Amino acid sequence: MVIQDQTIADLGEIESLKRCVSRLNSGDFTKVGSGDDAALIATTDNSFVVTTDTMIEHHDFRLDWSSAFDLGFKAVASNIADVAAMGARPTALVVAIALPGHTPVSWLESFADGLRAGCEQLSPGCAVVGGDLAAAEQVFIAVTAHGQLEGRSPVLRSGAKVGDQVAVAGTLGRAAAGLALLQSGNQDAINAYDDWVNFQLRPQPPISLGIAAAEAGATAMLDISDGLSRDAGRIAKASSVTVQFDSLALSGYAAILEEAARAIEADEKIWVLHGGEDHSLLATFAPDAVLPRGFKRIGTVLEQGAAAVLLDDEPLQTQSWDSVRG
Amino acid sequence: MVIQDQTIADLGEIESLKRCVSRLNSGDFTKVGSGDDAALIATTDNSFVVTTDTMIEHHDFRLDWSSAFDLGFKAVASNIADVAAMGARPTALVVAIALPGHTPVSWLESFADGLRAGCEQLSPGCAVVGGDLAAAEQVFIAVTAHGQLEGRSPVLRSGAKVGDQVAVAGTLGRAAAGLALLQSGNQDAINAYDDWVNFQLRPQPPISLGIAAAEAGATAMLDISDGLSRDAGRIAKASSVTVQFDSLALSGYAAILEEAARAIEADEKIWVLHGGEDHSLLATFAPDAVLPRGFKRIGTVLEQGAAAVLLDDEPLQTQSWDSVRG
Repeated sequence: MVIQDQTIADLGEIESLKRCVSRLNSGDFTKVGSGDDAALIATTDNSFVVTTDTMIEHHDFRLDWSSAFDLGFKAVASNIADVAAMGARPTALVVAIALPGHTPVSWLESFADGLRAGCEQLSPGCAVVGGDLAAAEQVFIAVTAHGQLEGRSPVLRSGAKVGDQVAVAGTLGRAAAGLALLQSGNQDAINAYDDWVNFQLRPQPPISLGIAAAEAGATAMLDISDGLSRDAGRIAKASSVTVQFDSLALSGYAAILEEAARAIEADEKIWVLHGGEDHSLLATFAPDAVLPRGFKRIGTVLEQGAAAVLLDDEPLQTQSWDSVRG
Repeated sequence: MVIQDQTIADLGEIESLKRCVSRLNSGDFTKVGSGDDAALIATTDNSFVVTTDTMIEHHDFRLDWSSAFDLGFKAVASNIADVAAMGARPTALVVAIALPGHTPVSWLESFADGLRAGCEQLSPGCAVVGGDLAAAEQVFIAVTAHGQLEGRSPVLRSGAKVGDQVAVAGTLGRAAAGLALLQSGNQDAINAYDDWVNFQLRPQPPISLGIAAAEAGATAMLDISDGLSRDAGRIAKASSVTVQFDSLALSGYAAILEEAARAIEADEKIWVLHGGEDHSLLATFAPDAVLPRGFKRIGTVLEQGAAAVLLDDEPLQTQSWDSVRG
């Protein structure tokens, strides 16, 4: 006997959401959870940080590349990276998702499993505390993430000072390598370098290092969503400085991707300099600061020059992905 | 000379968002606003309430009925009503929107104007503090709203007690009347009863009365999104009681809609009992409580019986709109 998989249209919003909620962790900061008009979340400092982002089918992901679990995991990872980049500890997320009515409930359950795994693996104690489910013709995911500062000052993009060290925590170019592998359609290469594909599908931002950076006195910080060059350009612009990268310090990030690049005739240096979605943390620290373990120095903050970002002495293009233009 | 309207694809995400942000109010609770990885919002009680909701083209609105301004206004109104229904003061919202790339930037600017007007008219001091803009084939709007309790306990759905008064603040059935008028396509009726159409397009929830209700000791509260009957059923279920409405007390809400109903051969009583989207506040209060000005008694909490909701002595259907099933 074949058990037909129920769809979300069969079950309706309330019952489908109930199935999800039962799979989520409850979180250490949740005073009132899912099921009322709003959730109530504990915070410190009589303040909270909040950030929102969307993931849209055909634009940000493809359902034949990403599983429901992958999408849930990535939705958490990419959003709590923004919280971490403020020097805050992620505490709670709300997730709105719109799906075609014919989507099996099991798909939604796997998505919830991915949300939970993202929280538990990347920032234990943090949880999805509420959400919304609706019908649409394409899959749309909107996540809002929250965090608490615990006495730390928020680390903005605008605080970089001339002479500061530029440092990164996390991977560079791996998510872009994974995307290029998927786009190549070269199944042998995809199988051989599935580690990089997995970074694209389920990024691993070093969430706790956001707090470590704030405690070590980071002067500016953000998470690398759109590529090292473009995101460094944002710090440069907000801080009225130029960011100079040291090609030697970046060479290790490229070397590890070289084989995969060769397999699909790509350039691993492009991935490292311009590839997005690693959600690693890019921060600046005073010249004499001791970098927290996990951060690696990759450059220096210079006086504002003609170029916002330099690779050694050459201007680096700071344009890449635009979520509206593509 | 005709100036062609620029599209969001012409301008790209960053510049389009900048145009929006410049039209928003800054808010009384915003410590760090738009432009960094996250916003930083002040709150009281080392806690905050948070709720999220989506509005999706073809499912929740039609672009030939709702202007961009209307959608911005409604996005704020419907979400801060959930905050108010917890007894909290709305403080900050984040808004993610996805639009076709050919959407004129002027449309997005009007949407931002609607967001601002919703905040300023319904809950001064509250503001949109961040957001996200992306491209999609249909319009998606996801709003997350936040509030602070200022020493009050959160008012949940589960606290109604036998003998409590049932009371409502705000309109009943007007948004449903407006929707029915639009759906009728009867332009004469639409023009004659444009007040009700306007309640559908730009609901006017009594936000400050959420705080008043909490201060007056409301035992349970929610905002009426899906219809009086269905939302009363939620209080009944969460509190393990039956909610009984008094048809006489409801008759005034219907009477005012009678003419419009006659014009399109509809039943105004159905609008009052089952119509959604007024975002009025439905609350229960102890038998001896003095209702805050603006609340009107419309029923009584009874011991849990076979029916979750009664109209006088008759069971009331508690099913209506489902955001997945339609």
